[in-house]
Order: sequence, then C-alpha cells, then structure tokens
Amino acid sequence: MPEISKKGQLMPASPIRKLVPYSDEAKKRGIKVYHLNIGQPDIETPEGAMNALKNSNIKVVAYSHSAGILSYRKKMVEYYKRFNINVSENEIIVCNGGSEAILFAFMSCVNEGEEVIVPEPLYANYIGFAVTAGVKTVPVTSKIEDGFALPPISEFEKLITPKTKAILICSPNNPTGYLYSKEELLKLRDIVKKHNLYLLSDEVYREFCYDGNQHSSAMNLEGIDNNIILLDSISKRYSACGARVGTLITRNKDVYNTAMKFAQARLSPPTFGQVLAEAAIDTPKSYFDKVIDEYVARRNVVVDSINKMKGCFCTKPKGAFYVIARLPIDDSDKFCQWLLESFSYENETVMCAPATGFYSTKGLGKDEIRISYVLNVNDLKRSMKCLEVALQQYPGKTN
Amino acid sequence: MPEISKKGQLMPASPIRKLVPYSDEAKKRGIKVYHLNIGQPDIETPEGAMNALKNSNIKVVAYSHSAGILSYRKKMVEYYKRFNINVSENEIIVCNGGSEAILFAFMSCVNEGEEVIVPEPLYANYIGFAVTAGVKTVPVTSKIEDGFALPPISEFEKLITPKTKAILICSPNNPTGYLYSKEELLKLRDIVKKHNLYLLSDEVYREFCYDGNQHSSAMNLEGIDNNIILLDSISKRYSACGARVGTLITRNKDVYNTAMKFAQARLSPPTFGQVLAEAAIDTPKSYFDKVIDEYVARRNVVVDSINKMKGCFCTKPKGAFYVIARLPIDDSDKFCQWLLESFSYENETVMCAPATGFYSTKGLGKDEIRISYVLNVNDLKRSMKCLEVALQQYPGKTN
Repeated sequence: MPEISKKGQLMPASPIRKLVPYSDEAKKRGIKVYHLNIGQPDIETPEGAMNALKNSNIKVVAYSHSAGILSYRKKMVEYYKRFNINVSENEIIVCNGGSEAILFAFMSCVNEGEEVIVPEPLYANYIGFAVTAGVKTVPVTSKIEDGFALPPISEFEKLITPKTKAILICSPNNPTGYLYSKEELLKLRDIVKKHNLYLLSDEVYREFCYDGNQHSSAMNLEGIDNNIILLDSISKRYSACGARVGTLITRNKDVYNTAMKFAQARLSPPTFGQVLAEAAIDTPKSYFDKVIDEYVARRNVVVDSINKMKGCFCTKPKGAFYVIARLPIDDSDKFCQWLLESFSYENETVMCAPATGFYSTKGLGKDEIRISYVLNVNDLKRSMKCLEVALQQYPGKTN
Repeated sequence: MPEISKKGQLMPASPIRKLVPYSDEAKKRGIKVYHLNIGQPDIETPEGAMNALKNSNIKVVAYSHSAGILSYRKKMVEYYKRFNINVSENEIIVCNGGSEAILFAFMSCVNEGEEVIVPEPLYANYIGFAVTAGVKTVPVTSKIEDGFALPPISEFEKLITPKTKAILICSPNNPTGYLYSKEELLKLRDIVKKHNLYLLSDEVYREFCYDGNQHSSAMNLEGIDNNIILLDSISKRYSACGARVGTLITRNKDVYNTAMKFAQARLSPPTFGQVLAEAAIDTPKSYFDKVIDEYVARRNVVVDSINKMKGCFCTKPKGAFYVIARLPIDDSDKFCQWLLESFSYENETVMCAPATGFYSTKGLGKDEIRISYVLNVNDLKRSMKCLEVALQQYPGKTN
C-alpha cells in the first residue's frame, strides 16, 4: 500500500470532534448530551435571507465569478461601510467559508517553513491550515488571569525571527471570547509596521460584542494598508455555517491578485450560499439586537455558574460565544471523555472541548475547557448543574 | 510591503480566463462573443433537484458532517451501484466541488517535491492544485493523431522515478473528450500495481459517453483497492457547477482517514448544494437521454465543421463536451486573443481556449485550441462560421 503524505500524518485531529465517538456512545445508552463543544449556534438563519434563496429564479446553477458574485461583493461594500470599513468590490474575494480565506491567506503570503505568530489559546483549525500550507504557527501565550488580553508586545518581539512573516489575530476571539481594544490593535500595528509583517485579522464575530463594547477592525489601522488581510465569514453572523461563505479582503494588490489565482483554480465559491448571503445583508437590526440579548443572557448564566463552582474560574468575555473556564481537574482531555463515558446526572451530561486542543504549547490547557454557549438559557442551566455535580465526582479532581 | 509567497508566484493564471479582459472589450465594442472557452453548460439544472432545495425546511443552516450529509452519502451508494461501482457511505467524502477532492487527494497522498504523472493535454487546474500541494506534475504526452488515446505504457515507465507517487487520469477527458477503454485501464492497473502508486481517477464526465460507448471506472479495477482514489463532482452531471459539490472516494482507510482530517479542518461542504445533489440522484433517465442527444448533435456540428475547414483537424471524441482542434496557425494564444481584439464576422466572434494552457510541456499546443461545445446547435454553427472566416483572415495563418 503506498504511504500517505507526511503532511497528512501531521494534520491534527479536530479537538472538538475527537470526543464524538464517546458522545455517540452516551446517546446510545439513553443519556442526553448537551453540546457545549461546538460553535454551531441554534439561532435561526434570518428568514428574509432564506426566502431570497427559495424565491431565486436560478435555472442553471452556474459557476459564479471566482471572486464571488459581483452584486454580492458590491452589497458587501455597503455592509462594511456600516462599520466604517471602506473597501471596494475589487478588494474582496468570496471564499468557501472563512476556512478557505485562511488557507488562501497562508498560501499567498507565507512560504513553506516560514512562521506566523498567533496568540494562544487559538482557533484550532488555524493549525490544520498551517500544516496544509507548510507554515509554522508560533504561539504567544495569553493568560486566563488577564482574561486572555493581548500578551505584552515584548513577548511578540522575542518570537520574531527572519522567518516571521505574519501575525494572525482573531477578535472577538474563538476560543476565549476576548475583544481586542483599539489600543491593543495600535500596538499590533506598530510591530507589524516595524518588522514589515502581514497582519491577518479574523473578525468573523464582529457583530457579537457585548456590554456596549464596540469592535475595532484591523482594516482601519492607518499606515499598514498593504499589510492587512481581513478574514471574514457569514457563518456565525447569520447563523449560516453550512452556507460556506467567507471572504478574504485586502487592499494589497499583489496579495489580492495572488489569492485570485488560488481562487480561480477552485473555480468558484458556492452560488446558493452567496444568494443567501447577499440578501442577509438586509437583515434588520432587530434580528441582531435579539440575538445579542440572547447571547448576553447565555454568557451570564455560564460565567456566573462557573465562578460559583468550587475552585473554578473564568472571566466575562466581551464577545463571540465562547468562554474558557479553569477547573480543578488533572487533565481536561480525560475529564471531557469521562463526562461522556462514565458520568450522568439525572440521565444527562455535557460535552465540552478540552482546552489542550486550543494551545500550541504542549502541556497548556490541561486544567481548562472551552464552553460554547450556543444552547438556550434553560439547557445551559441544566448543563452547568451537570458540570457542578461532575466536578464533585470526577476521580481526577484536584481540590 | 511584505513579499508574496513563492507558491503564489508559481501559481499559473487560468488558461480559460486570461483572455477575459479582451472578451469584455469586444463586448463593449458591441461584438457578440460566443463562449467556447469554458466548461459551463447552458443545460438547465434538473427541476426536481432545484425544487427539493426550494422546498427544504431548513431553519438553521448548520454545518453538515465534515464528510457530507449522511443521507446524501447513502444516496450516493445507490447512485454508484447503477454503474456497478460498490462503495459504502463510509468511503465517501463530500467536497467543495471536484476541485477540493483533487486538493485533498494530493495533500493526503503526495509529499512536497514528489511527482504525479498526468497524461497531457490535461485539465489545467490540476497544475494549480499541484502548486498548492507542492507536488510536481510530470506530463506524458498523448497525441491528436491518436485521438489522445492513452500513451504507450513504455512512456509511463520512462518517467517513473523513486519520487513518483501517483498517476492522475481523467476519463472522459477534459480537455480532449477521450474515453479510456477497459483495456487501457487494465494497463494502468498493472503499472500502478507494479510500482505501488496511487491511481487518482477523475470521472466527473461519467454520464457523458456517446455513440453507445460505456464508461469504465477505475474503481472496478481488481487488485488495487488500496491504490485507487475516485474524484467526482455533480457540476457537469446535473449542470450544477455553482453548487460546489464533489466527492473523494477511496477504499483505502489510511487515505480516507487522512483526507478526513483535511475535511474536518474546513468544517463542512456546502449544505444547500448537498440538498440539491441528494435529490438530483433521482433525476429521471429521460433527462440524461435528452442531454446526451443534445451534446452528440453539438459535437457533430463542431467536429464536422472543423474537419471541413482547410488545414484543420480533430477526431470525434467519445465523451465529455470538449474537443481539441489542430488549426493552421502560428500561435494559439495570439490567435485566440486576435479573435477577440481584432476580428469579427457579422458583428460576432468566438472565444476559445488556447491549448497551450493544457500542456505542461512547453511549446506544445501552439497550433491547437480547445472548444467546449456548451452552446446550442445554432450558436455553434454560427461560431464555426466565424472560426472559418477568421482562419482565412488571421495574419499568423500557416497555410
């Protein structure tokens, strides 16, 4: 049998999926599993956008332009203006989800063996795309005590080598929920400028900012227009993960033209998703107001519950719908597996993501889990009760 | 400004798109352009499949399973049975078009710097995906005089080195329309087995076989189950290019599990396209009968017209909807550009793809063009008349 590739061997298994077999087993045993492990919201996709797709009069489902349907790109220009982000339709490439935008950015900007600095805990799939592109991710560790704020710039400086080509950030952050301040972004601007790096900015949770906080976009950092690549997606914005519509945006013409060559090779992004996405831009503000209120209520249930549990700690994230909680446990991988294999409370249990999968640095995250608060308040309350009871019973508890 | 990547610089521009600016110019001057350059059929997507999507009751457009929606994969098992291809739903990964299937196959099976032998003329995007994966495509040249039949196996043997990891074939072929016989496939089976190579088999035009010829699938070659990877797509089958639904199929569990890691990193293939694709499997045979009749009529118009033109030659392809024609011209790139920039007949012209873009070997294809017969018979007749007149006027004609 011919060998599989080295990169194939290096590809990490998804940290949110490796427990799926145990969860399937638990369900077979009749135990209800609350899924706090994935970023799949239960919020309905805006009806207007769904209707636009259903009422579309497509006779031939043709390839779209490799950069995406022109009318959709023009509509996005409007969308970004609402956030004071000025871009033209010729600076936008529609991608197969934010996933492809990340891959195109790596492929276009970073050579095999070169390095991208990423604050950790990080979105685990960055590592998969880095392996695909042959890029090395270099973690700079943010800390739960600081609410996962931007690590000091001196920590970045220590990691910069001649091989460093980019810094990749995500704000509001998956998996921490942290929202970078304008001041933090300005610090990143300065280091990017000083070392002539790319700044890849993943802003897919832009709308999900809480407690009156505003999102600052890397696209509005002055003096580094040619360094910035915005990675975006409609997956969470309109609860349309399966539409597979993301975007890569850059004012750097060389990067744009290069990413377009990768885009042309794969012909086109999905037509149906783009039809939905174009209409979704007209989703009324009331939809988001309701969604934000809902997520704030959910977050508060989780954060308040966690901090009431003995030996547990998390800060209150300002964005996205994730929180990393520190628990009094020996090993988050073992704990999350045990929750599915050996534990139940009133015939229910919870599935969480061990935080180890979100750290590049080996050994970190062993006493942390990521909770996605994508369930309704009532289910979250029951989940937190499960977690509380579980922590009293878990054989590997450390307090 | 930071540099773009070496791979980005190596990525070829698409041979079917590099003439688009000239075609846009022609249209601005009021000249009608017949598009024989692209593989975008004008055939309508089956109505039943479109209705299944429109009538679907999706409330939350969620991620599908990374391998694709289970009911769709099970339905595909049925589909393949019709062609005596026996696969299970656990051997199928739904991809973002056939494009992603090619990329996953390269990434999973071939290391950076290793080689894949591909008969040329070849589907140009293979080169783009090879650059992405760092894989070297090694061409083995098939000849227009032989109707682009499989080159002698001795030619393959000459090219095999310790770096050779796979052979990649496409049947029915884009860009030649050639359909490999069972005998040719058996020869490939033997060499694949002898040298322990992967056989990547692109069969996206399976339904498009003419004159009573039957398609033979590489999946039915005995004794090399662990070597075969089937690359497939619904784009042409159901005229649904924009749905972005393809498949990678393999019985090799290591390759499957490896490709799944790449699939998990990008989360899921598009939900809407899969809903359409699942329903499309029930498309009645009458739809295909009509489509095949139409393509045969179109092919005959093109082939007969070409062979009547002075100094022109093509064979009659048994499948797909492409034909490569040899013309009495100095340079197919110049000729195709001249058709758009400087020529018109009764205010019309044609856009063709220079065959140079389909050869890896430099210098080949200069007197050949690829014609996609994706227009109706009447438009094709007018296109052929344009081409005939153009060949009398072209300053670089060689006869």
